[in-house]
Amino acid sequence: MRNVPSDHPRYASLILRDQLISGIQNGITSQHGLIAHGRGESFDYLLSERTLPTANQAARAAAAHMALATKPVISVNGNTAALVPTEIIALSKLASATIEVNLFHRTEKRIKAIISHLNSHGATNVKGLSTPSRIPGISHDRAKVASDGLYAADAVLVPLEDGDRVEALTNMGKTTLVIDLNPLSRSSQLATVPIIDNIARAIPNITNHFENIFHLSSQELTAITKNFDREIALDEAEQTIRDGVSNLHN
Amino acid sequence: MRNVPSDHPRYASLILRDQLISGIQNGITSQHGLIAHGRGESFDYLLSERTLPTANQAARAAAAHMALATKPVISVNGNTAALVPTEIIALSKLASATIEVNLFHRTEKRIKAIISHLNSHGATNVKGLSTPSRIPGISHDRAKVASDGLYAADAVLVPLEDGDRVEALTNMGKTTLVIDLNPLSRSSQLATVPIIDNIARAIPNITNHFENIFHLSSQELTAITKNFDREIALDEAEQTIRDGVSNLHN
Repeated sequence: MRNVPSDHPRYASLILRDQLISGIQNGITSQHGLIAHGRGESFDYLLSERTLPTANQAARAAAAHMALATKPVISVNGNTAALVPTEIIALSKLASATIEVNLFHRTEKRIKAIISHLNSHGATNVKGLSTPSRIPGISHDRAKVASDGLYAADAVLVPLEDGDRVEALTNMGKTTLVIDLNPLSRSSQLATVPIIDNIARAIPNITNHFENIFHLSSQELTAITKNFDREIALDEAEQTIRDGVSNLHN
Repeated sequence: MRNVPSDHPRYASLILRDQLISGIQNGITSQHGLIAHGRGESFDYLLSERTLPTANQAARAAAAHMALATKPVISVNGNTAALVPTEIIALSKLASATIEVNLFHRTEKRIKAIISHLNSHGATNVKGLSTPSRIPGISHDRAKVASDGLYAADAVLVPLEDGDRVEALTNMGKTTLVIDLNPLSRSSQLATVPIIDNIARAIPNITNHFENIFHLSSQELTAITKNFDREIALDEAEQTIRDGVSNLHN
C-alpha cells in the first residue's frame, strides 16, 4: 500500500483504491470489480464524496428494517469484503445478521478467500460456500444461495449488487436495502431502500443508526421505515449529481 | 474473453472492458488503470457513448496539428496499448508519428511488455525504454522520456494522460492533443486540443480525418487548427454530461 499523506484532499478515496488493489492480490476482488469501483468513484466525486441528508435517512430506514427483520442477511461480494470487512462484521454482530458471500463472478476459490479474509477480521459462520438453494429468475451460478442465508432472509442488505439479483430478491418478497452510488441504476430503482452513498460511509452510518434505534418498539421502527421516501432520496441524489458536474475538476 | 453477443446494447463497452482485463494478464495494464477506465466509463455513459460534434471537430483539429508537425509523437500508456493497439499503429504509420511508451506507474518490465504487445500488432521502433531526457517540472520516473521522442516532439497526442504531464509538456511549448472523457480534468483544461471522447472512437476518427486532410496546404491545415474552438468543445461536453444524468439507467 502506498503512503498517502492523511491530509491529502482525496485521502479517503485513495485509501479505498489501494485496499481494493490489495484485494486483487489476496484473490478477493475481481478485475471487473476494479472497473466497477472506478465507475462508483465518478459518481461519488459528483456527490462531492459526502453523504446526502436523504442518504442518511435511507441508512436510518435500513437500520430500522434490519432491526425489524427476523432473518436479516448481509450479502457480501469481493469489493465489499476488501473495502469494509471490519465495518460489515460490526454491523452483522450488532444486528444479529447473517453474512453470506455472493459473487457475480463466482468461483469456489474466491468465495473461500473472501470467507478466510472475513474470518481474519473476526467474522464467524460466514455463509456462501454451501448453496443448495436457488433464487428464482436468475440463471446459472449467480442463483446459488445458502438455504438458511439469503434464501430464507426477510431483509437483505445488498451493497454494490447488480440489478438482476436485486430484482429477483425483491420478487421473492424480501426487503432489499441497496447501497449504490448511481441513483438511476436498476439496483437503486428496484430497492426497497436505496442508499445512494459510498459503502465506506454508508455501512458505519447504518451501524450508528442501529445503535440509536434498536431499542425502539416495532411500531416506532415501522414508522421510521414508512417515513423514508425513496422517491425523494433518488431525486435528491440525481439532482446533486447533475449539479455536481461543476465539481469535476481533478 | 467472454462471449458478448454483438447485439448487446453495451457491446462496445463490454468488449473494451475485456480487452483491458486481458491487458492485466499480459502485464500491460495496471490495476490503477482498470479503476481509471471505470471512471471514464461513467463519463462515456453520460455522453451516451457517442462522439459529440465538437469532439469530431477536435479530432479533425488534432489531425491537422499532426499533419503540420515536424516531429509528431503518440504517447502510449498501458490502457491505450490494451484498448487500441492496431488503431494507434495505423495512425502512427499514416502520420509518420513516433510511438513512445510513457507510464504513470513505470516499470521497465511493463514498458517491455507494452512494446512487445505493440510489435506483435505490427509496430516497429517503439520508443520508451531508453529515456535519457527529462521533462522539466515533473518528478522522478514520470519525467523520463526519449531524447528523439517525446523530448524533441513538437506535437504530442496524449490519450488518457494525467494533468501534471500535460501541463509540463505544454510548458515546454509543445502542442498537446489530449483524449479524455472528463471535460473538466486538468488534462482537458490544459490541452491545446481537448478531444472529449472515448479513445476507441477518437483514434480511428483522427485517422479518418488525417486521410482526408493531409494533402492540404499548410495554410489550409493551419486554418483548420485555428477554427477549432476549445472553449466551445469543453462547454458542449460539460453541458451534455450535465443533461446526460437522465441516461444513467443501467
